[in-house]
Amino acid sequence: MVHRNPHLAKLASGYLFPEINRRKREFLVHHPEAKIISLGIGNTTEPLSPHIAHALAYAAQHLATREGYSGYGDEQGLPALREKIAHVLYKGSINPDEVFISDGAKCDLGRLQLLFGCQATIAVQDPTYPVYVDGSVLIGATGHSTDHGFKGVVYMPCTPENNFFPNLTTLPRTDLIYFCSPNNPTGAVATKKQLEQLVAFAKQNKSIIIFDAAYSEYIEEPTLPKSIYEIDGAREVAIEVSSFSKLIGFTGVRLGWCVVPQTLCYDDGTPVAKDWNRIVTTIFNGASNIAQHGGLAALDHQGQEEMKATIAYTKKNARIIRSALLELGFDAYGGINSPYIWAKRLGKTEKSWDIFNELLETSHVVTTPGSGFGPSGEGFLRFSAFGHREDVEEAVQRLQQTLR
Amino acid sequence: MVHRNPHLAKLASGYLFPEINRRKREFLVHHPEAKIISLGIGNTTEPLSPHIAHALAYAAQHLATREGYSGYGDEQGLPALREKIAHVLYKGSINPDEVFISDGAKCDLGRLQLLFGCQATIAVQDPTYPVYVDGSVLIGATGHSTDHGFKGVVYMPCTPENNFFPNLTTLPRTDLIYFCSPNNPTGAVATKKQLEQLVAFAKQNKSIIIFDAAYSEYIEEPTLPKSIYEIDGAREVAIEVSSFSKLIGFTGVRLGWCVVPQTLCYDDGTPVAKDWNRIVTTIFNGASNIAQHGGLAALDHQGQEEMKATIAYTKKNARIIRSALLELGFDAYGGINSPYIWAKRLGKTEKSWDIFNELLETSHVVTTPGSGFGPSGEGFLRFSAFGHREDVEEAVQRLQQTLR
Repeated sequence: MVHRNPHLAKLASGYLFPEINRRKREFLVHHPEAKIISLGIGNTTEPLSPHIAHALAYAAQHLATREGYSGYGDEQGLPALREKIAHVLYKGSINPDEVFISDGAKCDLGRLQLLFGCQATIAVQDPTYPVYVDGSVLIGATGHSTDHGFKGVVYMPCTPENNFFPNLTTLPRTDLIYFCSPNNPTGAVATKKQLEQLVAFAKQNKSIIIFDAAYSEYIEEPTLPKSIYEIDGAREVAIEVSSFSKLIGFTGVRLGWCVVPQTLCYDDGTPVAKDWNRIVTTIFNGASNIAQHGGLAALDHQGQEEMKATIAYTKKNARIIRSALLELGFDAYGGINSPYIWAKRLGKTEKSWDIFNELLETSHVVTTPGSGFGPSGEGFLRFSAFGHREDVEEAVQRLQQTLR
Repeated sequence: MVHRNPHLAKLASGYLFPEINRRKREFLVHHPEAKIISLGIGNTTEPLSPHIAHALAYAAQHLATREGYSGYGDEQGLPALREKIAHVLYKGSINPDEVFISDGAKCDLGRLQLLFGCQATIAVQDPTYPVYVDGSVLIGATGHSTDHGFKGVVYMPCTPENNFFPNLTTLPRTDLIYFCSPNNPTGAVATKKQLEQLVAFAKQNKSIIIFDAAYSEYIEEPTLPKSIYEIDGAREVAIEVSSFSKLIGFTGVRLGWCVVPQTLCYDDGTPVAKDWNRIVTTIFNGASNIAQHGGLAALDHQGQEEMKATIAYTKKNARIIRSALLELGFDAYGGINSPYIWAKRLGKTEKSWDIFNELLETSHVVTTPGSGFGPSGEGFLRFSAFGHREDVEEAVQRLQQTLR
């Protein structure tokens, strides 16, 4: 008989967001009348902008014509889109052939684990997006689960006490360092100086940084870096993962990219990009051609204007939530250069799932328990600013009524 | 410094199709005037049918409306599409919740390797689609490459001598058995009796069959099984992978599916579907919502008619190629219930790449060398029937002129 892959058995049955949905459904069974508002999963809610939707529809219709039809494209993506990403979003700090188009950051993160295999040691921010660790567990790069996370993973606490940036001097060396800025879930954005320290640390340790920049366009302070490649020397130590999901509402359309610089090499001198290319040509067949035409439209002049408007809408939501939480006596972080607000009640020692349950039961508002993002997330909740304005306003009103 | 993943180093640099493109480009450098016709890679060329393209375009436009917008959907796919696949394509022999929608069979095959991990032993048809072996190499389930394939992989010769079905009585047990029918590249279709033997063999050995049915709709003989689930007992031993790519020309749109029956379990009793669900929710985020609406349209009455017409077009191409090759003194197989023709010259002992080069140089026709599909493919070429009719006719004319 076929044995179960022992690495899969290590993963707890509940990935964070399915567990939230389970609790929400259970609550609705007992309170079918409740109108639940979700500030939980970071799922986009606003319609696509007309320009981008038109480009998608045009690309689809065009596939029904002989001159417009296309079958398999380059697994690495449409050359025009790779070029546009390099020029518009990276201002030429990377080359188009270093951009690999994908069906989203989560999928790329899964493939990146395959790139490094089960021998690679990893460090993650704590708290952070669960996929870095779960993906490493799947490939066998970690030990078993404990109360303090998975054995073999270096958790780098990022808390209010250290201003959400790890103390690098006390950290052991790892092969990979996952780093997400603006961070999901804390909303913290690393400064240029901090990222310089991180790049220097990676250089000194001969580590590779996997930099998740999925929320970079939410950064409005001009001194804060939007890409790791704004840091000198990053091209020798960093891969960057990003996505159109939270830029233009493509969570369902599926489009992202990954930057693997030609200058990033293994210890034997082999360029990492060579193996990455082998992986994307072997077990991936490119992002949907329709989605890629939407991405192209998002990067022209009109698309950029519309993208900014979509992001501004979400950021206004974030400020509404942040202000309300501060006023209600929460310690609240993020929500300025990020769509996420990271909050705990001042002067209380309580478990994340307990506050989650309380808000669900008293306000019918779904949040995300901070403990799901790592051991240092315990006691916090993540509030997502993705939602219709009136829902966000109503959620905030309910919280004001029940928590004041 | 980070070490290179040793499994990646095992893979030869050239995946078959990039190597073909390289030779084609090199030929064009020296013969810029040549009008090359490709019967090589199985890439679709005909425009999408209007009904399906309209559904795609409508879905895209609908995303620009508040009521039509959707963000993250279920990672497993749209419930309506899962249901329609179970009913229309499987006539109810599987349940909708056993269907997992994906961005294509190749991508699913990559994730399936992750499901079983590096401990799983594998068997493949020889010749066969290279991704089964390459994906296994990536995950570390094989040894090094040799002249006769990768160590640790059981190659099951499928040749004219055994009527393209392996002699199961001489085979060792493996955890996984990859089986593709209609086979890529040979075009051979396993009979019901043969698949009954295969299922019995898997049961006896407590193996899992990964059945690739990507070309099943090309089967026209009603006695030949289109799905492994037409065989009694297959629900306990088989996963089926399939795709819209060659059904409706979605090679660029990206849409496929995978069937994991609830009744398929590991030796500890854990349902395989539980782990598969964990994988698709952890490192995959669902197929593009636009593509899924195209898949839905393909499965309604009009879509089914159009799908049949598209397949009939390709199959007519296949018969043209097959007839010409037979007439030219080739041993030619497939091309009846399959878009591929598998051929070698009668009475000659020659290498696949040599015939490939000869046809490229004399006829400016690109084929696929059979040796790229496994050790038993040496000496053969695969001719793909995907192409515009006039190109296929011209390619055949050229072959008649140069080879006669």
